[in-house]
Amino acid sequence: MADWLGSLDRLARERAKAGLTRQLRPRPAGDQVVDLAGNDYLGLADHPAVVAAARQALDAYGLGATGSRLVRGSTDAHAALESALAGWLGAAGALVFSSGYLANLAVLRAAAAVCDLVVSDAFNHASLIDGCKLAGLPVVVAPHNDPAAVAAILDAHPGRTAAVVTESVFSVDGDLAPLAELHAVTSARGALLIVDDAHALGLLGPSGAGGVVAAGLAGQPDVLVTATLSKSLGGAGGVVAGAQPVIRHLIDTGRTFIYDTAPPPSVVAGVHAAIGVARAAGDRRAILFERGARIATRLRAAGFVVTGPAAGVLSVPAPGPEAALAWAADCRDRGVAVGCFRPPSTPDGSSRLRLTVNAGVPEADFARALNVIVECAP
Amino acid sequence: MADWLGSLDRLARERAKAGLTRQLRPRPAGDQVVDLAGNDYLGLADHPAVVAAARQALDAYGLGATGSRLVRGSTDAHAALESALAGWLGAAGALVFSSGYLANLAVLRAAAAVCDLVVSDAFNHASLIDGCKLAGLPVVVAPHNDPAAVAAILDAHPGRTAAVVTESVFSVDGDLAPLAELHAVTSARGALLIVDDAHALGLLGPSGAGGVVAAGLAGQPDVLVTATLSKSLGGAGGVVAGAQPVIRHLIDTGRTFIYDTAPPPSVVAGVHAAIGVARAAGDRRAILFERGARIATRLRAAGFVVTGPAAGVLSVPAPGPEAALAWAADCRDRGVAVGCFRPPSTPDGSSRLRLTVNAGVPEADFARALNVIVECAP
Repeated sequence: MADWLGSLDRLARERAKAGLTRQLRPRPAGDQVVDLAGNDYLGLADHPAVVAAARQALDAYGLGATGSRLVRGSTDAHAALESALAGWLGAAGALVFSSGYLANLAVLRAAAAVCDLVVSDAFNHASLIDGCKLAGLPVVVAPHNDPAAVAAILDAHPGRTAAVVTESVFSVDGDLAPLAELHAVTSARGALLIVDDAHALGLLGPSGAGGVVAAGLAGQPDVLVTATLSKSLGGAGGVVAGAQPVIRHLIDTGRTFIYDTAPPPSVVAGVHAAIGVARAAGDRRAILFERGARIATRLRAAGFVVTGPAAGVLSVPAPGPEAALAWAADCRDRGVAVGCFRPPSTPDGSSRLRLTVNAGVPEADFARALNVIVECAP
Repeated sequence: MADWLGSLDRLARERAKAGLTRQLRPRPAGDQVVDLAGNDYLGLADHPAVVAAARQALDAYGLGATGSRLVRGSTDAHAALESALAGWLGAAGALVFSSGYLANLAVLRAAAAVCDLVVSDAFNHASLIDGCKLAGLPVVVAPHNDPAAVAAILDAHPGRTAAVVTESVFSVDGDLAPLAELHAVTSARGALLIVDDAHALGLLGPSGAGGVVAAGLAGQPDVLVTATLSKSLGGAGGVVAGAQPVIRHLIDTGRTFIYDTAPPPSVVAGVHAAIGVARAAGDRRAILFERGARIATRLRAAGFVVTGPAAGVLSVPAPGPEAALAWAADCRDRGVAVGCFRPPSTPDGSSRLRLTVNAGVPEADFARALNVIVECAP
């Protein structure tokens, strides 16, 4: 037998030596850790209206959707959520997936039906990168957040129909893509703009409709939006929103839509309820932005470099993976959860703490957490 | 602007002309349609113990996991489910994903760390095919269910470390892979065997532990098992089970594990409860097998070709996509849901009805549904 288990052990030892071993730390229900690590930006995961809607659908439909969307898995709850998402985002249509990862794989494969080039931001999420690979198109990686560079790449490929792919708020550093400038570049050149709005949905724009709406691009037929339903909406799943021919194409041909069990009705119904809360949650958004600014001010005053926050994500570089790990561990020991991002989860190969703001965290806890982060710094 | 919306419309017209348009048909809660289309084989999606466990976790944790497994998403419920799955399957470890699709993408990428060739059954599921693509390894497609052909392919690639990939019960035709023979072939040649047990878990083997256990391969270090948690377990999500170095590799490097929000605690807890029910559900399995045999007998007596059922899936060829669609529509009009599988969802390009057995359907409804299918045949 080939010694492939031995090979895996050797790879594990190499990761350990580089400080890149990862550890699962299950949390109990109702743990008292202050959350500056998760993506429940508006604190809606345990909002009473969200939990009540999920419970009602659980009782009405049972747990699972029992099949793929086209076979048995589509329920009234799925249709209602898609209608609500399209309305919120100002899109002609929306299609829900069981994960944002699968939504991103789908949108890029759909783009491949009509495009023959992808221009992908250097800091894009793993799911977008995998989507580019599965789409099978030539990919040009563009410098991060650089519309002029995107324009130059497009101009260097005359006669091609391109899809330009970016996040709105980037998941690691929390900075905002220049979406309006990017759209000016793409629309002038007949290119499609695909935006992963995962970390802006619920936070930016009127009624929290996201980064694309905030940039004035709602309903543009040459813009496709994807997002997760697991961050500000406190649930799970993903969505692609855009022009009807795209939605139609995904229903007929989207492999990660057709060949995947539909998301559970209870989750779908809970997310739908969360949209209602999120649209009216100007108060929670105000808390989120105030806290994000406070983290940045406090950490910069303490001498740290801080990126973001355009929405609820901030990033603070650490000297190396072990230092980042120790920093996060010390915070955790003092009851504060922060994200520790090391390669390959960082776009530039450097390690950092990733801090996220949760508007649902009580103010006293948040203030204490901010002190803990500074006091635990390497 | 490039007329890519026009291009998508043109593609949609071509699909319509070929009878390949798909339509979402949302079902209401508690609809009275008899289910011969879904994958809730044991009828556990609305089992009281499953719903109660999900409700309890929903109240305890809230709706979403609020982050990826390594950042904030791991809960005691996830750890308990993984322990239960490993115990049930006789595997050293198990890792849960938010979809079976993502589990299959992960397992093939992990294989690529130690293999340099994939041998993939011709009828494998879309998620396995996409996994092969993302793994970036050379792929040889093997004739369906043909261990001798797999042996010949492996022998034709001396010096390679190969992963042989198959389903146990195939999702469209419901036939069973010769797993023991395949393992004899792979183990003699130092190859890894990867089995997608989605349609056998809960149904085959002692206490429903699946096709791999039924084939006597439980705990073999050169066998990796994937499955969905959305079929016989009535929930959502996926799992990879196998040797600890594989699980460790997936935790450290699995992109669809690391960069995806964890599945909701309520879903995870509901699935865990479903395992307890499924292990003891010999009575439900007996109903399922008796019904599967009855469908095959009845349809063959009426002159149809029927494939399966090794577990709960049967397939009946139709003359073409329109005929399959009309057959399924007539059944639906008479209150019976059946699967209508057309290209590209069929491995051989031919259209058919796919029938699935749900042990939870009342006997009178099942008997009536069987008549309806025969009476509606083209």
